[in-house]
Order: sequence, then structure tokens, then C-alpha cells
Amino acid sequence: MEVKAFFWKKTHLLLLDQRVLPHKEEWLVLEDHRQVAQAIKDMAVRGAPAIGCVAAYGFVLGVKKGYPPEEVYNTLKNTRPTAYNLFYALDRVTRALKEGADPEEEAVKIEEEDYKANRQMGEIGKDLVPDNARVLTICNTGALATAGWGTALGVIRSAHRAGKKVFVWVCETRPFLQGARLTAWELLKEGIPHSIITDSTAGFLMKKGMVDCVLVGADRITRRGDVANKIGTYTLSVLAKHHRIPFYVVAPTSTFDPHITDGDTIPIEERSQEEVKSFHGCRVAPDGSPALHWAFDVTPAENITAIITEKGVVKLQG
Amino acid sequence: MEVKAFFWKKTHLLLLDQRVLPHKEEWLVLEDHRQVAQAIKDMAVRGAPAIGCVAAYGFVLGVKKGYPPEEVYNTLKNTRPTAYNLFYALDRVTRALKEGADPEEEAVKIEEEDYKANRQMGEIGKDLVPDNARVLTICNTGALATAGWGTALGVIRSAHRAGKKVFVWVCETRPFLQGARLTAWELLKEGIPHSIITDSTAGFLMKKGMVDCVLVGADRITRRGDVANKIGTYTLSVLAKHHRIPFYVVAPTSTFDPHITDGDTIPIEERSQEEVKSFHGCRVAPDGSPALHWAFDVTPAENITAIITEKGVVKLQG
Repeated sequence: MEVKAFFWKKTHLLLLDQRVLPHKEEWLVLEDHRQVAQAIKDMAVRGAPAIGCVAAYGFVLGVKKGYPPEEVYNTLKNTRPTAYNLFYALDRVTRALKEGADPEEEAVKIEEEDYKANRQMGEIGKDLVPDNARVLTICNTGALATAGWGTALGVIRSAHRAGKKVFVWVCETRPFLQGARLTAWELLKEGIPHSIITDSTAGFLMKKGMVDCVLVGADRITRRGDVANKIGTYTLSVLAKHHRIPFYVVAPTSTFDPHITDGDTIPIEERSQEEVKSFHGCRVAPDGSPALHWAFDVTPAENITAIITEKGVVKLQG
Repeated sequence: MEVKAFFWKKTHLLLLDQRVLPHKEEWLVLEDHRQVAQAIKDMAVRGAPAIGCVAAYGFVLGVKKGYPPEEVYNTLKNTRPTAYNLFYALDRVTRALKEGADPEEEAVKIEEEDYKANRQMGEIGKDLVPDNARVLTICNTGALATAGWGTALGVIRSAHRAGKKVFVWVCETRPFLQGARLTAWELLKEGIPHSIITDSTAGFLMKKGMVDCVLVGADRITRRGDVANKIGTYTLSVLAKHHRIPFYVVAPTSTFDPHITDGDTIPIEERSQEEVKSFHGCRVAPDGSPALHWAFDVTPAENITAIITEKGVVKLQG
């Protein structure tokens, strides 16, 4: 059975709580836009396309309950600043409402389009993955990060389902461990061979010739192809360039921000120091030490081999 | 008061248990070579120079208790394969015994020499650290990793004590978190401003011009200057090269292996998968997912600006 991060139930949204995976599968029942906003902020749901879909449903719930659309929009908009899909989806449902259409129909459409885009990216992207490839990835870009199937992990899934032999190096992805907790879980369910590594291991694996390509997702892409994604992506791009390993970004066109050219102008979310200094309630660093917690970084277009979208492949390098 | 990782007490060795720092300061009482070997294996003590000193005292304890010297030597030798100081120190105490000298005097000498070497590296290295420098480091290379003062962290300490303004970016250093747990703790005690970062954040900090130099320690250095050190060091060296940031290795000459030229021949310790799949005793990855746990990597001489030793600076690049 396919993994799903959320189910729309018309009076509420069922959301798989990704904070407690892989050891617990708990579903949250979200009944208004404020609960949805909190779930996005607290990362019960994450992944740019999934955030977009869930925010659209949050808007529908808030409006159905009679809250002023502008208030609902603002509450959902001010959750996380980096992923463009959040603004893309909220703008669509808002516009639908303004134009007298049904925002619920629009939200369902956004979810369906995202799922379809993932399948298309999988079809297009799988041809770029060589047979017997050892693919390196970061964060979670699978069914949990989207309406289903996945972006970068969707390409891996499509290659695997097409009968290609694929092995995945899963960067654990500190501090939230989306790789170790979520990507490994999806790969296990799909029966794709893989191994978890600390984020620091990627470089030495490349030096030893044990990585054939890097596949990552995106949270926002500028007009010239600069890519905001999970912190650590930029490091992987420099390493891939140094070792002449193809570096692919996989993202639907809903992740492209048409208003921005220079990646340095993308707002980078700074999250709580506690998420770096603690884990599962256990403090690992001295109380008096500060920590810096940028959740994303920006990879310039010049470090990217190509961006795989549902509409085709945008070649940037080579 | 200066931080010390161990105290020699003639009938036993007092060892600070680094696995439970920074929140607990527990001292282990080690009474024979087998207990010392276990403490090294389990990383109650770590850091190449500290391992060397402690192993030498372990040899003295074993021989004092009447165990055959060869058995004592082998038990201590077969603990961890990468750090050269372990073999350097064990060879010295063994030779002392063979030559009719007192191995205990030799072990004390090894400790004293290491402390002195650290102070000398600090004096030499501090001149390479610019005033107001933002130094990036990985793992723990301080008093806890040595007989006292530290190698890379010793240089930072010396620069700070000489009145230079220094700020330290502390890579948390997964999976064992020597950075977040140990380096941050030492920096706090010393009053040196710092911030903990996830290992994945180093690259983006460099891109943003927020790192002036990288200082790391070493576990083994070959004749041509290839350096085995904590996993992630190689990645930092590639990032530093890409961003034209000086990359210094700080290590005493006891870390130099005179028998090896090519860094690819250094044995790289592979440790338990559990250490990657768990975080402070809490399993974070699915039970069915494997993990790869290399404890070290190798940085080629061409990625290193210079190696700072107690005898002077070996320039490699630039």
C-alpha cells in the first residue's frame, strides 16, 4: 500500500504525525486552519509540496468554519517562510474563493496535480538514473513530503519499479533526522536497498567512488535555477562538483518562485536552537552554549546538473 | 582550573568518562590493562593523543599486575585501529621494558611530552589565527583529547589567552557528538564565544563568508601529509578549498606514521551501526535499515594548507 501523509475528510484533515515516525504511526485530526498552521510550524507535516497541499485544506477548513478568509490566509502563510509551495497553494485557493469558485475543489485539484506531477517526474527522471546506480539523497522527498510518490525519492521509486537496480545512501539529515527516520522507512516499505549515513560521511563516500549521482528535492527555486533546500544540500552540491558526480534537483513547477532571480534573496528559516541542542527531550549540549539552526541553504544553479520537473528536464550544467 | 581527561595514580588510572559529558562528570577507576582497553574501545576516552597516553598507563598497570607484556601489549593494541598515537605510545613503553628501563617513567614522560607539545603548537599556531577570526572546527581536539590544553582547540585556546578575539563554529560531530558535548563544554569553561552547528551547516556558513579558517586535529598523518581524522574532516577540506579558506591540521609529531605514504592505506575503523541509528540511547531509524559507520576519513595533503606541529609548521599548499 502506498504511503500517504494526509487524507482530506471534508470536515477535517487526517495528518500522519511525522515527528514520531518511524516507531509510531499516529494520525492527527485537524479541524480548523489554526490546528493546521500549528502542525506545519511544528513539523508534524513537512516537505514543500505536502505543506502546500495541507495549507490549502487548512484554508478550506477555516473558511468553512466562518473565519474571515484574510485571517485564515495570514495564519497559514506565517508558518514557515522558505517553501514556495505554501504560498503557491494558498494563492490558488484564495483566488478560487475570490472568483466565486469552490476553494475545496481547488484544494483537491492541487493535491491531485501534485501526485500526478510526482508520477511524471518519476517517469522522466528514472531515465537519468543508471542501472546499478548508487544514489545519494538528503532529507525526505518521498510520499511523506508530497501528495504521494515523491520528488527525488519518487524518481528512485520509479527507477526501482521499472526494474532498475538502485541502491540509496540516505543522509540522516540533522537535526530533524528526516533521512534516518522517514526516507529509510519509505525505502524499507518499497524494498529498495539502502544504508543510512551521517551527513558527514557523504564526502568520503564520493571520494571512494561509491556514489553515482545525487538526487535532492527543493523548497524554492528561483528564475535562474538557484535552489533552496534542506540545510546540507549546498555542501552536497560542492562535493558532487568536486568529484564530477551528477547533481539533480527534482521538483514540480509549483516550487518555482517566478518573482525571484537571485537565490540569496530567498528567506531562510531559522528555527529553535533547542532542535540542534536536544533530541527526543534529551539535551546533548551544555546549557550555556548557543546553537545556530538554519533549516535550509541555497545551492546556486552553477552547482546543479539539471532540474527535473513534471514538464521536462531543465539542463543547467554539462 | 584546567580540564584533564585522566590522572595517573600509580596503582590505577582515573579516567573522566567522556560518554556522559557534559551533563555528568563521572570518573572511572581503571585497575588493569583490560579495563583500560575496554574504556578505549567504548570511547570513555577518545582523541588520538589521549588514547596514546592512557594506553601507555594501561600497559604499566598490566605489567605491574604480572600479566605477560606481550598479552598486555596486544590487548591494548587491538582496541582502535586508526589513531597512530596508540601504537607510538605502546611501542615506547614496550621498548622501555625491553631495554630494562622503567615503563612507568616512560608513560609519565609520554604524558608530559604531549602536554608540552600542545602548548608549543598553541604558541606556534596562534599566529596563524587572525584577530576577530571565526574559526570552524570538528570533533573535540581540546584538553579532553590530549594530555591537556589540546591540539586544534589548543591553538584556539592559546590565541584566546594571548588576547585575540576568536569565535568558534563547533560542528556537532555526529554520531558521537564530540563537538556539541565536549568542545562546547571546554569552550564554555574557557569563556570563548562559540556556536554549535549541525555538520551540514559548515558549507553554507563558508559560502556566506562567515568562516575565516578551519582548524582540525588528526588521528594519523602519513609521510606525504595525508591526514586521517574524524569523519567529516574530508568534506570540510573540500569545502574550504572551494571557498579559498585556510585549512590547518594541528597534531604533534607522535601522530605521524613514518611507515605509510599513501593515506588510502590507513586503516579506517568501522564502528557499530547502532551508534548511527540511535541518538543518546534512543533508536531513531527503522529496525530494518542498515547504517554505515566509518569513524574516520582521509584528507589528502593537497587539500591542506599547513600542518602545525610542536616542531614547526609544515606548509603543504599556498
